[in-house]
Amino acid sequence: MPGKQPVLIRTIAEMRQAMKPYKANGSRVGLVPTMGALHAGHASLLKRARSECNVVVASVYVNPTQFGPNEDFNKYPRQLPLDLDRCGREGVDYVFAPADAEMYGGGTQTLIHVAKLTERLCGTFRPGHFDGVCTVVAKLFNIVQPDLTYFGQKDAQQVTVLKRMVADLNVPLQIVVCPTIREGDGLAMSSRNAFLSVEQRKQALCLYNALQAGRNVIVQGIKTSSRINAIMRDVVLAAGPFATDYLEAVDAQTLQPMEELAGTVLLAGAIRIGATRLIDNLLVDVT
Amino acid sequence: MPGKQPVLIRTIAEMRQAMKPYKANGSRVGLVPTMGALHAGHASLLKRARSECNVVVASVYVNPTQFGPNEDFNKYPRQLPLDLDRCGREGVDYVFAPADAEMYGGGTQTLIHVAKLTERLCGTFRPGHFDGVCTVVAKLFNIVQPDLTYFGQKDAQQVTVLKRMVADLNVPLQIVVCPTIREGDGLAMSSRNAFLSVEQRKQALCLYNALQAGRNVIVQGIKTSSRINAIMRDVVLAAGPFATDYLEAVDAQTLQPMEELAGTVLLAGAIRIGATRLIDNLLVDVT
Repeated sequence: MPGKQPVLIRTIAEMRQAMKPYKANGSRVGLVPTMGALHAGHASLLKRARSECNVVVASVYVNPTQFGPNEDFNKYPRQLPLDLDRCGREGVDYVFAPADAEMYGGGTQTLIHVAKLTERLCGTFRPGHFDGVCTVVAKLFNIVQPDLTYFGQKDAQQVTVLKRMVADLNVPLQIVVCPTIREGDGLAMSSRNAFLSVEQRKQALCLYNALQAGRNVIVQGIKTSSRINAIMRDVVLAAGPFATDYLEAVDAQTLQPMEELAGTVLLAGAIRIGATRLIDNLLVDVT
Repeated sequence: MPGKQPVLIRTIAEMRQAMKPYKANGSRVGLVPTMGALHAGHASLLKRARSECNVVVASVYVNPTQFGPNEDFNKYPRQLPLDLDRCGREGVDYVFAPADAEMYGGGTQTLIHVAKLTERLCGTFRPGHFDGVCTVVAKLFNIVQPDLTYFGQKDAQQVTVLKRMVADLNVPLQIVVCPTIREGDGLAMSSRNAFLSVEQRKQALCLYNALQAGRNVIVQGIKTSSRINAIMRDVVLAAGPFATDYLEAVDAQTLQPMEELAGTVLLAGAIRIGATRLIDNLLVDVT
């Protein structure tokens, strides 16, 4: 099913220019921000955008400011030709793939910081990560000026933080959160899965298994988070000596821990399989 | 010269709604953000906006997040009826005067921080001030979505910081900086001048006199900033025992000090006359 190749745009000025007629005629513009290495998870975002918008823009940009100094910025997969093909198959109209000099050329000094929501979970282990995410996403919002923008529930803390930013800064758009897409055995799709060896790929499933075990005991009526967290941790420990950054039940809105679970709970985890850091999460309604 | 009274808007939703037809038909929207207590300085911004835009919005909002805990937020002058009259005389179409609950009701956690440019001058003496300014101005930009926005050179560091923010975040608008408007004797117009007693009002002129003295010696060929700073400081000291937060020659672009002046220099000062903090500045081209 070969699609029409999307228009590849490399500069901010050209991106703005391309959007002008759509903004002028009231078209509904959809933006799917990505770091490329597109997989079925991204494809689900693109499909949703295609079904809801008159014009669909995918950005492909590995944003340096959201990587820590010892993280995987340099080895993060880059495959623009494949990504363009994928975008073409999903009916994307424009792919915005700027260079670093284009995005941060003028000696940037500005950061957007969301406070409380970034203090826990990935925020603890990736200092500055969400400042980098918020800032680059705000830039993309200002460049493309979408009406709708699409993110995956896989990055649960990211969507919570970005929704907070959009509300707090009155950004005139709507964030659409799409369900996590998984491999046949349940592993959450991630560009970083490509780093896993065959053996590690099997081991990696322990994260999703742990989250499911947590969900199961909640469904059985256990609402004490310390117990649920211990059960989830045991599942990972049984699979191998993997470092767990965090694996816990938190309030889905505030991302804060609560001893007795109530309302919508986020079971969220980040573990390291070798040098690869994987995250996953499940939402559970506690009644 | 009575003008048509502008439309007073109190909520973000109504402000967005009011702008929709103008955005749809390609009108040029101008925004003049103010904290109210409008004087001839603000009027000059409104006139400029009126001459360049199809629709002119003035915001009147005393933003709490840009005041420190011991600053003059509570006593800052508030006079919306007079401001509406003034806006009417200047042909303003809409006055956006939201309540605090409207602007910060949802438990805001987001701040926009511009780094280097905020480290000196007022940034040293008003920690967090420019974070508050940047954040509220970004909110106003997102609510009104102006094509042009107008600020006074009187707040030299503010305009430098906001220009940096707009460039760094790719905000799709242009900042227009308008000259400082002065009283007959040269005192820069400021809403805070209303706090001065008759005696203090006379003393306050020492700030502008000091800046002029600095400019004069630069014009005479002296380019060593330490000498110029000393001359300016002497003018203030001769006028009375006023606390000087800062009074110095800096690079107009970076706001950093430089021993040998070159290029465009900003002579900037902040002094305290009794409980009232006044700022002023002059731009000087050093050839």
